[in-house]
Amino acid sequence: MAPFLSKRDLSFQLFEVLDSAALPQRPRFAEHSREIYEDILNLAYTVAERHFAPHAREADLNEPHVVDGKVRLVPGVAQALAAFRDAGFFSAHHDEELGGLQLPRVVMQAVQAHFKAANIGTSGYAFLTIGNANLQRVFASPEQQQRYMLPLLEGRWFGTMALSEPHAGSGLADITTTAAPRGDGTYSITGTKMWISGGEHELSENIIHLVLARIQGAPAGVRGISLFLVPRYRIQEDGTPGETNHVVLAGLNHKMGYRGTTNTLLNFGEGGETIGELVGEPGRGLAQMFYMMNEARIGVGMGAVMLGYAGYMASLEYARERFQGRPASQKDPQSPTVPIIAHADVRRLLLRQKAIVEGGLALGLYASSLVDDLQTGPEDAREDTHLLLDLLTPLVKSWPSRYSQDALSDAIQVMGGAGYTRDFPVEMYYRDNRLNPIHEGTEGIQGNDLLGRKVTQAGGRGLQVLLSRMQADLRASEALEGLGEIRTALSTAVSQCTQALQALLSQSGRIGPDLYLANANSALEMLGHTVVGWMWLRQAAAAARALPTARGDDADFYRGKLHAARFFATHELPRVRAHADLLASVDRTTTEMQEAWF
Amino acid sequence: MAPFLSKRDLSFQLFEVLDSAALPQRPRFAEHSREIYEDILNLAYTVAERHFAPHAREADLNEPHVVDGKVRLVPGVAQALAAFRDAGFFSAHHDEELGGLQLPRVVMQAVQAHFKAANIGTSGYAFLTIGNANLQRVFASPEQQQRYMLPLLEGRWFGTMALSEPHAGSGLADITTTAAPRGDGTYSITGTKMWISGGEHELSENIIHLVLARIQGAPAGVRGISLFLVPRYRIQEDGTPGETNHVVLAGLNHKMGYRGTTNTLLNFGEGGETIGELVGEPGRGLAQMFYMMNEARIGVGMGAVMLGYAGYMASLEYARERFQGRPASQKDPQSPTVPIIAHADVRRLLLRQKAIVEGGLALGLYASSLVDDLQTGPEDAREDTHLLLDLLTPLVKSWPSRYSQDALSDAIQVMGGAGYTRDFPVEMYYRDNRLNPIHEGTEGIQGNDLLGRKVTQAGGRGLQVLLSRMQADLRASEALEGLGEIRTALSTAVSQCTQALQALLSQSGRIGPDLYLANANSALEMLGHTVVGWMWLRQAAAAARALPTARGDDADFYRGKLHAARFFATHELPRVRAHADLLASVDRTTTEMQEAWF
Repeated sequence: MAPFLSKRDLSFQLFEVLDSAALPQRPRFAEHSREIYEDILNLAYTVAERHFAPHAREADLNEPHVVDGKVRLVPGVAQALAAFRDAGFFSAHHDEELGGLQLPRVVMQAVQAHFKAANIGTSGYAFLTIGNANLQRVFASPEQQQRYMLPLLEGRWFGTMALSEPHAGSGLADITTTAAPRGDGTYSITGTKMWISGGEHELSENIIHLVLARIQGAPAGVRGISLFLVPRYRIQEDGTPGETNHVVLAGLNHKMGYRGTTNTLLNFGEGGETIGELVGEPGRGLAQMFYMMNEARIGVGMGAVMLGYAGYMASLEYARERFQGRPASQKDPQSPTVPIIAHADVRRLLLRQKAIVEGGLALGLYASSLVDDLQTGPEDAREDTHLLLDLLTPLVKSWPSRYSQDALSDAIQVMGGAGYTRDFPVEMYYRDNRLNPIHEGTEGIQGNDLLGRKVTQAGGRGLQVLLSRMQADLRASEALEGLGEIRTALSTAVSQCTQALQALLSQSGRIGPDLYLANANSALEMLGHTVVGWMWLRQAAAAARALPTARGDDADFYRGKLHAARFFATHELPRVRAHADLLASVDRTTTEMQEAWF
Repeated sequence: MAPFLSKRDLSFQLFEVLDSAALPQRPRFAEHSREIYEDILNLAYTVAERHFAPHAREADLNEPHVVDGKVRLVPGVAQALAAFRDAGFFSAHHDEELGGLQLPRVVMQAVQAHFKAANIGTSGYAFLTIGNANLQRVFASPEQQQRYMLPLLEGRWFGTMALSEPHAGSGLADITTTAAPRGDGTYSITGTKMWISGGEHELSENIIHLVLARIQGAPAGVRGISLFLVPRYRIQEDGTPGETNHVVLAGLNHKMGYRGTTNTLLNFGEGGETIGELVGEPGRGLAQMFYMMNEARIGVGMGAVMLGYAGYMASLEYARERFQGRPASQKDPQSPTVPIIAHADVRRLLLRQKAIVEGGLALGLYASSLVDDLQTGPEDAREDTHLLLDLLTPLVKSWPSRYSQDALSDAIQVMGGAGYTRDFPVEMYYRDNRLNPIHEGTEGIQGNDLLGRKVTQAGGRGLQVLLSRMQADLRASEALEGLGEIRTALSTAVSQCTQALQALLSQSGRIGPDLYLANANSALEMLGHTVVGWMWLRQAAAAARALPTARGDDADFYRGKLHAARFFATHELPRVRAHADLLASVDRTTTEMQEAWF
């Protein structure tokens, strides 16, 4: 089987594009070193390869089902999560006093990338648990953290996020699950939650749901939503799980892919009382949940990157080993056939995958490095970092979700009929990844978030920070060899973005919010491609700096980076223009379409 | 369940965009009338709805498997094909003396569209059989037609095409299956064929394989390939199937989708002799097979169109019925939620689907009308028609295969999590259609065919015919209202195509065939989008002519056509430029990439 990621590339991204080796200069990471990070990444590779990858197809073929009232999963899932726990990955980024290693977020993201590439379905249980604990670390009371969070850090209990309801998937303002005060500070939770990943299983001693609900009498809309900690089993005085809390599995969803992760319909308060604890202040539920959600959105984007990455590696191996056909210039039918990687169109399909998945990886890790900068970087830069991260989050979520699907389609195409069969993993990755443009905020939601909120917040400061960072990298690259095409193409794209947004924003008052947002999808496309173009400039610059003294495989690696940047410049960045033109023209095609005309 | 196609649109395409009602003026169709065509289309809808659609999901969930040495399919497959046979659809386009109705190809294509939309997997058996018989009708001897073709026309036996081998999928020049003369005019066939759809089943009394093989001593390459009729069961003196012909099922392929159609690995000459009959002259096998293949390529394109169409209809119904969210301008959380079709981004996703599937349908039917023109149109136009059809075939095959996949992704996206589950059919269509860019010639093969052969053949005459037809429609549209955007966008795209091809062709001698073909994919994209833009101009023109006197639903229908044409002009045709620029620049990014750099 092909490797599921390139260790060389991950090292390049962390230590040559980003300056992660300098993180130990910050007090929180003073005990660390590049060697420690590399050891941890090697451990992640080993655990992912030995415990996650082997049952990925088995879990796909045997989706979760209910036997005697219990959700049954293939045995590899529990074994893999035990290995993940034993390696300490549930808490590695937490404080030492909580049992963690205080790993930087960017290193943690790189660790997690291995499990996503090796087995996205099984890794889902771990990452929901980690996200749940991270939210508690910020918003839950010390007593709540003691009771509900510590068992998650130890990997003994697992966590979920329970937002959607059957009538309200994207439209969270309309949720109706209610919380009735029980008089002792706790609440009685009643309602139904839909699309709850990891909502029911026997993998852990308990499951802690983070549930959005309305306290009786709360106002309509998002201001009336509060957040609750709701355990599957009520927690006894000694902290161990006790009797049922009446969270009842009402059904499993049967998905096209991502099958290893149980997805459930849950009834709260069925056949008895479901008791929950309020987190933080009433009415702050959605804002608090967005702490987890923003992290989850970067996580979804990284999941998409890694599915695409695994598909790229599989199709690359196939293209090197499969012999078929001859160059168009070779007319002798008795000449030997060539490996299909020699055909220009196969190389196009591989280059496009490389450009997408390595560009997406650079973006996901860059965003994670901003999380570190927010927490441990220079104080005076944090406000700008915060606004930049806010602006990038919808792009980090949506761009890889969309373009990894294209990359995976290319992986299938490289392999032809073989890629369409279950003899190879790429068809599974393709099915798995199609969830990513949907969950944790659909493409439509990301577009509205980007154009309706992030582009304009703080007077457009986030966009200014982005533009100035891109311009700084463009200027710095002028001294380097071999970057002409990516620099020119990126400059052009940045100008097109700037002009389009200026044109649109100058009319926003006059045209009103509906028309302003009508082409938000083009804003996602335009800025997404431009930001990934920037990531390619940064990678190309790092490669250009290293190439003069590189030898052998290293030199080939850097030439590949420079060439993939050129590919992104010549084949991908020219797409920006059409989207910029559409935005700038305030195109009304979608708003003027009438229902009856369909 | 949503309808799988729009009868109103099919009627519009046949009788308002195309002039199919005039076909009865041709002698071959003298007994026909528009009413007869409409009755036959209604029959097709009924048979498809009652017998094909109901078991589509069941066949997807229970893929073909072997029990006691026999391939087992769900029972609905045999029942559906019996209904198809009873309706006379196996032979409806054949001569009356062969039991047919002499239906025009364009009507036959419209008939077949129903079965593809309702159940692509089951319809596969029928269309392989029809294609096999069509080839025999042209190239097989009268005796062979009597023995091998007539039972196919009666739907008693089924047919396949057996080209690929395990080491040679796209690279047919390297097939090694051999045919040894037996001295009595027949041949002993030995070899292994891969990816054979409908290769083994118990649906019919016999299976007739059309097999490519090399007669012993034949030259290497395509000139050494001959075509053979190879029955599963040897045919007895009385024409009935007798003993086994030793075509042995060596394995079933397990596919991501299109699961209803058995796909097989077959050994010829295993455990005994496989006897076959040569079709036509030795060494003409590939040329003859391309008669079936060209028809199959249009058929694949139409299959893609109809999968996309069925997905569009399903997501449109969902978008009308699902209430969620509010317009951005509506700030009152207590205001009622709206059907999601009211959201601009959902309307974009629906408009894009409409633009793709109705544009693709127009293209597939147009190509079929050219087949009629070739066979029954004015004699003096046939050479031009032939060259135009040749030029369009790779586009008819590849454009819907690729863009219906985008449309189906949009259908899933409209439905969100629901679209990702097996509760709705769109995830199945998405898996099914992913085969279409692979089989009957991959995208890479179509690109090379288009740019390497069709654009230049007969001194570029096919391209000239295409351009002059597009220009004629552009001129004719100037008198009509409401076509400004599509006319301008199409004119621009036509100019971009022309200039790009001129720039490339002017250098073709200097740059050699490998570099000339390096960006063939962009030629597919550029000409594909432009040709579909032309199809939208033609549809918009028909709508503009009809709108002034239309009322009610009809007026809405025509406005929808005009608006979808506008969408294609504003959202899709601007993609042409980037591909044209890449082609014109003779971009070397893929050819200069080295294997070691990946």
